[in-house]
Amino acid sequence: MNKPINVRFNPAGISIGALEGDNLLDIARNAGVGIAASCGGDGVCGTCKVLIERGAVDGPKGFVLCEEDLAQGIRLACQTWVLTDLVVTVLPGAQAPASIGHLRALVTREEIMAATDWRFAPPVFKLYIELPVPNLQDNSSDLTRLERALESNGIANPLMGISFLKKLPVAVRENNWKITLTVLKERRGLRLTDVESGDTRNSNFGLAFDIGTTGVRGELLDLVEGKVLAQGVEYNGQRVYGDDVISRVNYSGKTGGLDQLQRAVVATLNQLISGMIGHAGVKRRSITHVMIGANTTMTQLLLGLESKYLRLEPYVPVASILPVLSAGNIGLDLDCDVPVSTIPAVASYVGGDIVSGLVGTGIFQRPETVLYIDIGTNGEIVVGNREWMVSASCSAGPAFEGGGIRHGMLATAGAIESFNIDANGAPVVTTIGGDRPRGICGAGLISAVARLFLNGVINQKGKFNIENAKYVRAGEDGAEYLLISALSSAIGKDIVLTEIDIENLMRAKGAMYAGYQTLLDSVDLTFDGLDRVIVAGTFGTHLDIEDAITIGLLPDINRSKFVFIGNGSLLGARLSSFSTELIEAGRSVASLVTNIELSENSSFMENYTASMFLPHTDVRLFPSINRQSGEPVDGDAQ
Amino acid sequence: MNKPINVRFNPAGISIGALEGDNLLDIARNAGVGIAASCGGDGVCGTCKVLIERGAVDGPKGFVLCEEDLAQGIRLACQTWVLTDLVVTVLPGAQAPASIGHLRALVTREEIMAATDWRFAPPVFKLYIELPVPNLQDNSSDLTRLERALESNGIANPLMGISFLKKLPVAVRENNWKITLTVLKERRGLRLTDVESGDTRNSNFGLAFDIGTTGVRGELLDLVEGKVLAQGVEYNGQRVYGDDVISRVNYSGKTGGLDQLQRAVVATLNQLISGMIGHAGVKRRSITHVMIGANTTMTQLLLGLESKYLRLEPYVPVASILPVLSAGNIGLDLDCDVPVSTIPAVASYVGGDIVSGLVGTGIFQRPETVLYIDIGTNGEIVVGNREWMVSASCSAGPAFEGGGIRHGMLATAGAIESFNIDANGAPVVTTIGGDRPRGICGAGLISAVARLFLNGVINQKGKFNIENAKYVRAGEDGAEYLLISALSSAIGKDIVLTEIDIENLMRAKGAMYAGYQTLLDSVDLTFDGLDRVIVAGTFGTHLDIEDAITIGLLPDINRSKFVFIGNGSLLGARLSSFSTELIEAGRSVASLVTNIELSENSSFMENYTASMFLPHTDVRLFPSINRQSGEPVDGDAQ
Repeated sequence: MNKPINVRFNPAGISIGALEGDNLLDIARNAGVGIAASCGGDGVCGTCKVLIERGAVDGPKGFVLCEEDLAQGIRLACQTWVLTDLVVTVLPGAQAPASIGHLRALVTREEIMAATDWRFAPPVFKLYIELPVPNLQDNSSDLTRLERALESNGIANPLMGISFLKKLPVAVRENNWKITLTVLKERRGLRLTDVESGDTRNSNFGLAFDIGTTGVRGELLDLVEGKVLAQGVEYNGQRVYGDDVISRVNYSGKTGGLDQLQRAVVATLNQLISGMIGHAGVKRRSITHVMIGANTTMTQLLLGLESKYLRLEPYVPVASILPVLSAGNIGLDLDCDVPVSTIPAVASYVGGDIVSGLVGTGIFQRPETVLYIDIGTNGEIVVGNREWMVSASCSAGPAFEGGGIRHGMLATAGAIESFNIDANGAPVVTTIGGDRPRGICGAGLISAVARLFLNGVINQKGKFNIENAKYVRAGEDGAEYLLISALSSAIGKDIVLTEIDIENLMRAKGAMYAGYQTLLDSVDLTFDGLDRVIVAGTFGTHLDIEDAITIGLLPDINRSKFVFIGNGSLLGARLSSFSTELIEAGRSVASLVTNIELSENSSFMENYTASMFLPHTDVRLFPSINRQSGEPVDGDAQ
Repeated sequence: MNKPINVRFNPAGISIGALEGDNLLDIARNAGVGIAASCGGDGVCGTCKVLIERGAVDGPKGFVLCEEDLAQGIRLACQTWVLTDLVVTVLPGAQAPASIGHLRALVTREEIMAATDWRFAPPVFKLYIELPVPNLQDNSSDLTRLERALESNGIANPLMGISFLKKLPVAVRENNWKITLTVLKERRGLRLTDVESGDTRNSNFGLAFDIGTTGVRGELLDLVEGKVLAQGVEYNGQRVYGDDVISRVNYSGKTGGLDQLQRAVVATLNQLISGMIGHAGVKRRSITHVMIGANTTMTQLLLGLESKYLRLEPYVPVASILPVLSAGNIGLDLDCDVPVSTIPAVASYVGGDIVSGLVGTGIFQRPETVLYIDIGTNGEIVVGNREWMVSASCSAGPAFEGGGIRHGMLATAGAIESFNIDANGAPVVTTIGGDRPRGICGAGLISAVARLFLNGVINQKGKFNIENAKYVRAGEDGAEYLLISALSSAIGKDIVLTEIDIENLMRAKGAMYAGYQTLLDSVDLTFDGLDRVIVAGTFGTHLDIEDAITIGLLPDINRSKFVFIGNGSLLGARLSSFSTELIEAGRSVASLVTNIELSENSSFMENYTASMFLPHTDVRLFPSINRQSGEPVDGDAQ
């Protein structure tokens, strides 16, 4: 029996009992101490940094911390096991804002991953074989020799391409006929996608991507250990051709447009790949699989498929369930035979990104009725359970990812991710990683608008009460709020929030809310009839559910029903990379979901118009939002 | 009952009875009148030209004859049906030399094709489908729509690639959701290789190739009608990198060598493709399949596969049975998804060309024991029947295809294909197409050496008896025989046969003969124990079996056992393009054949040395060759 010990977390000042050998991140979670761990505790993202003030710990050095950190006593909580009584300080970048939504997210994401029932068995595996060395009595071909050996492993008639055949004669002879095959499980059987000399079974890595209209997020996965090794995020290189899917589709119709869009997003993926493999020290050749979660338009543009029919009635995509393609088909900077799988789509505007989220959260396995909301440039909504699912989508625009916002940025280091007003009426911001502010991300924007609204700085129409607000001033685009001055920012100029920014956010949240309303109406359900609301979105690890309700982005219902899971598309792409069962599940889910076209639904536009207030024109829908409406809150400030 | 009629053939002066409506080529064959028809009577090669002197005929105009020919009364015998009593003259180019070997070849090739038991069912077929037009109630994806329609046709889970997906959305909308699919039968199931709008079922064409070390021959096939539409021959563009497979393999080991060799042969294929589709007026897009018969080295170099191990003990090829690849994999100038099939190989030096011949001649279906000989730069030999087969190969060098011969050329128009000495001792040559001589092809070379040997102009060692021969003179390379003077040739200079040419031919025939001997020895058979000897080779339509025996290239046995089938590799590639059963048969045959490495067999070298005489050092092996040895034959000439 392990010895009982005591752990004290600063600066929160919370103490809790634990046992020798317990994991420090788990202890923090049990204590209700918010420590950000965006990779879910895999030791790769480096966000959960703590300083060991007193006491002894154990754990691997890992590759995230530098020698200097280690010498100072800095550790990753997720990679630290406690040996004695301990006093630790959670470092600023690791301090998760103590909102209900966020805390729940960190815990519940784990719960949900555990609740989704899947077996670890990636779609690509490695097989080590020692072939009989040929001689004049048995000089059958390299491939015949291989196929015979495979048959004795129960593998008959494997598929292969020219690139495999080119490698085979060299690989078999490099290490005395000892080889490792990379094998892809296809629906029709097995495909040999690579051959290496010697035993490389321990080196099997996958890539999972969420290709969003605005941002592209990637993960480098260890397909042997089932771990996330590195993460990356970049703006989608297609952004220069238009902000939303409609403008991209329009651009794809121009001469050469489809090619340009394909090249742009492939370049973004290649940039992410280089970054992640460089960070984790993984060889490019060791990447054996790519899994893509993306909306239908992003998927079609990635593959260079004609996309104009996506936005012409009756909105028909090229394919819902695509065959497994290869890196060479689309120009990814990987071995050309590396299989590229795409999560199936439901319809033109309900894509693989949402199916990925449905798979990743296990909704398709459980009886409760769930509203699944994916907040992004292309907002997607599903209601249902393991028996039935109905989906819809709405174009929210890029505001949630910082697009169309004066100082908007993706949720990366330096982005303002939460906002408040202190006792003196002055703005207080926290940034991702604790860096000097470089801009504001979607979560920060929601937080800022919510708090400014609650404090009466913004009115119901999203306009500033200029006479009341000390930090409001006239700017280029009309009135603006000074979030942080040039002196404190990392960009050498003031970071502001403009009325146009607010208007863009209101349009985005209005489209989302109108979407839920219309979809639920269509299946005769109300918000109260839901067992759970799962909120996904590319907000990094942060979305304050309370703030989101305040601005009317989420419905004003029992908070315990909410779960924020972060990037649902990436979650599903990651899990599908780990489990062939979940790839199959994606196909079932895509077939199970019935899509409703909101653009064809007259009540959607009415609901949308009614949503263009803070939180809503119908205040009865948001009974818990108590606002100091119109009252000055910073009138007496310094 | 059709009316009996009489047909007289000039210049032979042979008359024969027939019935109204009979085919003129069939009548000629029944009459024993040799008419060359290299395409086998498909109306495409244009060799069987006759002049209708008197009487009435019927038949299509076809695309081979020009208006001028038709006006003069010239017709293709194979496309002519007789209506009345007739007098015809067989035109010079169509007159097949009246040797037993050649006559048998023309007849027996047909017999053999009929004797091979196969059903017409090409590996690629077209399928016309009308899809339900989508609407808002049913806006499932293009591919889902297609897959549902296919399922009602009994086709589940078809395979497809990115190129098919790129065409699909455009094709379905071009002609109101009426499309024609191109479908490849793969071992695992069906693959969709193309989609066109509308009904294109009548337009389905294949290409069959024999890729020889020296020459490449192609056929354009109508996969609906089962016909040959065009033929073509070109030197293999790899020739500049070496004459035989060994020098090619050596070159492939140099930096960039493998790429250069691949590009060279692909360029040759592309040249042939352009020529054949241009000739037949077939659209490039309508080509749906490519079938390759080639020796193992040629196949590997075509695909860009590492080939150095082919000539290193223990002589292991990359693969015997290759998967179906695609035009895009190797750079053929066709739609990139067009499947490229290769006839399976047995071993490094017994390739798909010989398996193709075994399939095309139906040996694998019959009980008789057959010696199958493929005479070419890489000579290949098989003995066996439907129960067992043993193979061997020997490097004969390019002499049989005119390589390494002063005035050697491929068997194309203007090539001297037969030789004799007239009553005055003067040389008489006939050329392919009746054109002015441009050079000498393999068949002509065999004919010339045989006749000069029989007439005492050449001695047993292959040297000229200079004192006896009027047409022998001193040349750059020693003694040479004047085949045709500059005045009569098409190249403006004398066409000669040199002692080096003769030496090259003797080495080539010696290697072949030693090959048969060694192979038969190894299975305890003699020439007399054979039921049949099938001779294949790229000699155009011409190989005089008697001449070939005279020089010791073929064994001196009962002439009725010989069958000359022309290009066996191309024959099998053509038939395999017509019949999926024969593709399967190729796999069985390749597995059935046991290969013996002659280079490892000590008696092969002894046999080879003993074969370096005309016809052989052991004259008892050639009892029927009566030579006017050493006697002057043209001493009394003009």
